This record gives sequence, structure tokens and C-alpha cells, in this order.
Amino acid sequence: MSALNTDFYELTMAAGYFMAGMSSEIATFELSVRRLPETRNFLIAAGLAQAVEYLQNLRFREEEIEYLRPLPQFRNTRFEFFDFLQDLRFTGDLFAVPEGTPVFPNEPIAIIRAPLIEAQLVETYLLSTFAFQTSVASKAARCVIAAEGRPVVEFGSRRAHSPSAGIFAGRAAFIGGCSGTSNTEAGLLFAIPLFGTAAHSWTMAFGSEEKAFRCLQELLGERTVFLIDTYDTLEGARLAARMGRPQWGVRLDSGDLVSLSRQVRRILDDAGLRDAKIFATNDLDEQRIAELLRNGACLDAFGVGTQLATSGDAPAVGAVYKLVEMRQNGGVQFTAKFSADKPTLPGAKQIYRYPDRDVLGLYSECNRDFQGEPLVRPVLLKNELLEPLPSIEASQARAKSSIAALPGRLRSLEQSEPYPVEISSTLERLTDALRREKTT
Amino acid sequence: MSALNTDFYELTMAAGYFMAGMSSEIATFELSVRRLPETRNFLIAAGLAQAVEYLQNLRFREEEIEYLRPLPQFRNTRFEFFDFLQDLRFTGDLFAVPEGTPVFPNEPIAIIRAPLIEAQLVETYLLSTFAFQTSVASKAARCVIAAEGRPVVEFGSRRAHSPSAGIFAGRAAFIGGCSGTSNTEAGLLFAIPLFGTAAHSWTMAFGSEEKAFRCLQELLGERTVFLIDTYDTLEGARLAARMGRPQWGVRLDSGDLVSLSRQVRRILDDAGLRDAKIFATNDLDEQRIAELLRNGACLDAFGVGTQLATSGDAPAVGAVYKLVEMRQNGGVQFTAKFSADKPTLPGAKQIYRYPDRDVLGLYSECNRDFQGEPLVRPVLLKNELLEPLPSIEASQARAKSSIAALPGRLRSLEQSEPYPVEISSTLERLTDALRREKTT
Repeated sequence: MSALNTDFYELTMAAGYFMAGMSSEIATFELSVRRLPETRNFLIAAGLAQAVEYLQNLRFREEEIEYLRPLPQFRNTRFEFFDFLQDLRFTGDLFAVPEGTPVFPNEPIAIIRAPLIEAQLVETYLLSTFAFQTSVASKAARCVIAAEGRPVVEFGSRRAHSPSAGIFAGRAAFIGGCSGTSNTEAGLLFAIPLFGTAAHSWTMAFGSEEKAFRCLQELLGERTVFLIDTYDTLEGARLAARMGRPQWGVRLDSGDLVSLSRQVRRILDDAGLRDAKIFATNDLDEQRIAELLRNGACLDAFGVGTQLATSGDAPAVGAVYKLVEMRQNGGVQFTAKFSADKPTLPGAKQIYRYPDRDVLGLYSECNRDFQGEPLVRPVLLKNELLEPLPSIEASQARAKSSIAALPGRLRSLEQSEPYPVEISSTLERLTDALRREKTT
Repeated sequence: MSALNTDFYELTMAAGYFMAGMSSEIATFELSVRRLPETRNFLIAAGLAQAVEYLQNLRFREEEIEYLRPLPQFRNTRFEFFDFLQDLRFTGDLFAVPEGTPVFPNEPIAIIRAPLIEAQLVETYLLSTFAFQTSVASKAARCVIAAEGRPVVEFGSRRAHSPSAGIFAGRAAFIGGCSGTSNTEAGLLFAIPLFGTAAHSWTMAFGSEEKAFRCLQELLGERTVFLIDTYDTLEGARLAARMGRPQWGVRLDSGDLVSLSRQVRRILDDAGLRDAKIFATNDLDEQRIAELLRNGACLDAFGVGTQLATSGDAPAVGAVYKLVEMRQNGGVQFTAKFSADKPTLPGAKQIYRYPDRDVLGLYSECNRDFQGEPLVRPVLLKNELLEPLPSIEASQARAKSSIAALPGRLRSLEQSEPYPVEISSTLERLTDALRREKTT
């Protein structure tokens, strides 16, 4: 976690604000998603815990400043800027929706209010943290919906975008409803249940499938999952059946999972192993899980890897971090961007959630003027945590109950009519006035 | 970089191998890609430097072992296993193609030969490291091809899958041919040129576009890039033109880039700024760049963000890590998987590159029997680096010259007839013999 893990223009802007004497102006930025991917009817906010950890530990190390100092872009920057960087800490406020909250386009997932340079510098890290975990949590929620009560485990670390991404994919997938992860470091860091038993290489290394199965059973007892498709799936199933108890069951990782799972079920049942389960992996996602179950596959649990850890059908949500307010000399200047295809709404905003819609109002409007539940809460004030963050289990529970409370059509795997996000009349008037001022 | 950043089954298998007395058997695993994404005619290998760093520093920390010890999956594991983990270092060999080398399906990007437990444990980290950087380097190469000589800069950190992914995206994009990155930490770690000047928030924070432009020019001089679309693009262009020299030029980030770039070009030319350049961003990728140039856009450089840092159209390549040999008591046992849809080839392999095709032979075959250039080289022997790794500039140069040497059709942005990867007659005979042995 380095303060240099940021887009370079954050640092050139920081130098420029410093040179222009704007260091102490207070800026408010909102982090939100511009639009939903076609294959998402909602997003599940995640990443707040890592954002807090980053903000609370933000600082430039000596060698980082020495790297920046001679760069040609800072040739006209006074040397006091580097002293300023040396002492820089995050001193501002963070407001956010709790992790596990469903969110929609243009709704603030997080709001940063801080001295301009601080608020600007943290943009890149916060965007990648919130956007990635939110993508994965949302994908996980869909897989869990598709599995209709069967456990879904996140298995995608090997396909994640760098080893660190695998850790956060495991965390976000758990918030989205997964039962656990294969990423051992995520297990340690976040106390998430770990899953995994053996790979094909296990069977190959022993030479004999039977010896491989016996050794696994001795090791794992009732947690044993026999991976039966290294050579011939049905032969593997017969061998697993002969192993008898204890075993959890078997895993299928190739072939026609509908037909194979039914044949394997029969083999296990015929051997009296009616309580042995069948676990499926192999390029699964929510659509594939739904299709398997629709076609009568006998499957008890799913491992989802690549598609979950990379949010494969929507590998990026268009998260943005936009300046919405500047405070100087006691006054507030609302700001917005009115470029052709990417306009933004001015002012720090609150989300009010009603049973069938959200309303975006200005954060400064009075909560009592709205019936809906306000979702954005203060998290850090002057970089002090107001209260401990919820546990990851609480975030998972929040996601589960909030998804259940959404209009039913949003829980379809198909694209549904969008959830309405309305704008308060005060916010609408402000936006119109500002557009007139800036574009005419 | 933690030894626990691995799939949990690597650790249960490690315990099982330890219990079965197989710790000292020497295993050989190959890391390769099963098939190319539809939108890739070749991949550019990347990630080797991080793989080496990981292998050379692999060790379990005390608290990591204490986390594992009480897990129920290790209930039947002798406590000596944890002493073994405590002392575990990577002691094996790594063979790999140099970074920047074009590779094709089933070709070994890396080969690990090590005591079985070590070789197994490193699977997850190596897969995510090689697969992600290889994806991004390959995507970068396509963007650079599309830009026809104009610079392409990697700008995607904010959309990368976690902040760390942004660093490695910057690195891999540079190997693939990008001129630099916006990721400042990648600049520090890998000595990659940094790009970036200012965001829309810069213009909004100053309130006045003119003041914002003037301050940027004072800061950056001839490196100034005016972002002209915060409010009205053509007004922004006229203002940039009035700023005169020094300036590099302007950036367009929204709207119809063909029409706007032509109008902006005229405004700059009319002001006598014929050498001012136009930089384009806004959800670009190789197809979009090619389309813009085909349609006559006046653009001099491109910033590619989301699609590059997430390899958006192919966010995962199906990289696999398969056991190909076991050595015990002086003999070699070749291994392969023959499951229905995901078979593998046995034996450690060498890639021989001919002008128009590759041939995969066994690594143990004699190089002199092949005319093609052998691409896989020893990198670590007993975890000692044979020679310093090439510089990142050398890897970029290797990618550039190797791509130029490929058959021309592979440099198309459209899917081309696949590059032939043949199999030596020795490898073919071995595969057939092993299939008969294992499946009948």
C-alpha cells in the first residue's frame, strides 16, 4: 500500500494546487458508477474496509519522494511541495454506504470531503478498490441466486488479475453471498471459510487413482472430495463409491455435467452413499449454474472460478470519482461536468431508499423531508473511525436481506426494467442552474 | 507476497504428500494457455520477473503457520508437517520463455521442476502472475498495432482489479509496446515512463477554465496537455489555442472523437499551433483506435484505460499448470490428463519456432534435431538465477521484433487462421502410449 499507487496526474495536480495556493480548500468528491453493465440489475457495494485502511495509513515514504523530485514534470514546482508531501496524511472525512448495500447508477458508493490535494490523490486507489470488489460481490450475488440455496464457493484466485486481486475477490465474493473461498490468505486476513481438497495433479502424482483417493480420505476424513475426472469420470465415480465412508462426496470438473452428474448420482446411490454429495466446477457462472439445474443436473454445490474472480462478463464497472463541491471562505461552490456524453450531478448526495425506488437528494437536505431510508453514513471524520466497521458476516447478511427486499424482477438473471433512481426537486433545480451558468 | 496467497487445496495436497512420504519426489509442472481468446491471434508472455521474485522469497511466516495448524482439514496431519512448512523454501528449477515472446496454445510459458510439495504450492501465484500480465501485454500489442506508430499510454489503474493489479497492468502494457503508464508506483518499481497531466476536477476546482489552463501551463510548460471537454469542447479548444506556447497540446475525453478532433485540429492550426498535438482517451481499445483512424480522426496519441488494464474483451486467458513428469528413483514417469474436454500433453516441452509455425518437442529431445529456435530457457536452477533477467526495455524490444517476425495475418485485429503448433513425432508417440495405458 504505497501513496505512489496512484495515477501520475493526481501528483501533477497536487503540485499545481500547491503552487496555486489551493492546498487548504476543501473539496468533496463522489465515487459512483455511471451505468450498470447489461448483465447486472444491481450492484453490491464492497471495498469499504480496504478504503478505510488505505486512508488511515496514507503517507509518502522518503524514497518515493526522492523518486518524484527529479521528474521533469516537477521542474517548476517549489521544493516546499515535497516537504508538504512528506508530511501529508489524510485528514478528511469519508461517507459511504455500508458494504453489502445494493447500489444503482449515479448513487454515491463513497464520498470524500478533504483538503483538495488529499481528496485528489486518493482517487485512483479508491476507484480500483471499490469498483473491483463491487463487481465481484455483485457477480457472486447472481451466482448465489442461480444456485437456489446450494452453496457457491469462490475458486478463482489463479485467474484473478494478479495475486492480490485473488485475495480481494475472495473477500468480495463472500460479501456477495458465497460460502467461502479457496484463497488461503483471504481466509487468514478476513476469517472467511476455506474450501479445497485436491487437484488432478494429486491423482496423477500417485500414479494410481485408487492410492490417490485412499490417501486423500486418510487425510481429510468426512471432508474428502474425490475429484473423479482425471482419466474416466464414471470409473472415478465407481472408485469413489467403493471408498465408502467417510467422504463428503465427489467433484466433477469436465464433460457434460448434466448427464455425468445423474450417472454419478446413481453410482453413489447404488453404493448406499445417498448422503454423498456432488460438487461441480468447470467454467461455471450464474447462467451455466441455472442451466444445469434447469436441465436436471444432480449437483449439491458449485465452485465458481474465473468468471467470478474476474467478473468475466463485466470485468469493469464504469466507476467514477467526481468533484461535486468546493468550499472556500465559508461558501460552497457546487461543481459538475457537462461534457456531451458524460455529465455529472453537482453536490454531495444522499440516497433515500424506498421499497420500489431510490431518490437522490443533496446531502444537505433534511432527512425528515424524505420517507426513504438514508443509506450514506459517515465513516471517517477527520480520519477517525466513528465506530468499528461491521464484520464481514454482517456485510454478507446485509447483502442477503437487502437483495431480498428489492423488487423481485431485479433478482432475475436477465436484464430487467431498471430500478428507478429519482432526483429530488432541490437537486434538479441546482443542476439546471449550474448547467446554465457553465455552458452558456 | 505471502506463501498463503495460494489455493487452499495446494496446502491440503502438501499435507497429503508429506503424509504419504512423497516430499522428495521431483515433479515437473508446465504453465500454458489452453486456447486463445477469439480476439487474440497470439499472446505476449509477461510476468516472469514477478514469478522469479516470488519463488526466490517464498517462505511461511510464523503467524501463517499458526493460522493453518488448527484448521480441521489438518486434523490428521502430523505436526512435523508444520515444521516442514516453517523451513520450506523453493529449491527447484524454473524454465521459461523470455518476457515479450509471442506464445500459442499448449506452449509452455514456464516450467517448474521441484520437489513435489514446492512445485504444487506455487501453482496459484504463478498462474495469476503469468496469466494476467500475459493478457495485458497481448492487449497492449494489439492497441499499438492499431495506433500505427502513434504512442499508446496505459491509463487503466482506476479500473484495474485492485490497486496492485494496476501496477502490473502498467508493467505488462509497457512490455506489449505501450510508451508508458499513468501508474506512478509502476514508474518507480519498473522505471517506466509516466504520463498524465490533469483531470476534469482540475478545471472544476479552479472554477474558471482559463485560470485552470494558465496554472497548468505554468506548472508543466511544454508538457502541458489541456483537457478541453469539461464544459464545451470547442470553447475549450479555442481557449487552449489562445494559451499559445508552450504546450504539448490538448486532450479529448468525450463526444464524437472523429468530428471533434478535426474541428479542434482546425482551431489549433488557425492559431498557428500546427505542432500542438491531440491526445484521445474515452473507453478506447484497439478496435476503437482503428475505427477512429479509418474515419479520419486527427489524433496523435492514445490513452487506453479500462479495456487495457482489465483486458476487457478477454479478461481471463485459460492458463493452466499441469503435472507433466514425476521423477522417482532415477526414473521418469510421464503424466497427462485425459478427461473428456480438457486433455493435456505429457512431458516437459520445448518450443521450436520456425518462420511459419512452432513445433512442440520434449525438452529431452536434442535441439539439433530441430531447425527452429528453441524458446524455453533455464531461468532458475536450484533457485539460483542463471543470469540477470533482461531489462523491461529489452523485453519490450523483444516483443516488437518478435511480433514483426510473425506471419502477417496474425497482426490483423480480426481473428486470423491460427498459427500452426505442431507436435514432434516423439511427443506424439509418448502421448498415444500414455493414453492407452491410462484410459483402457
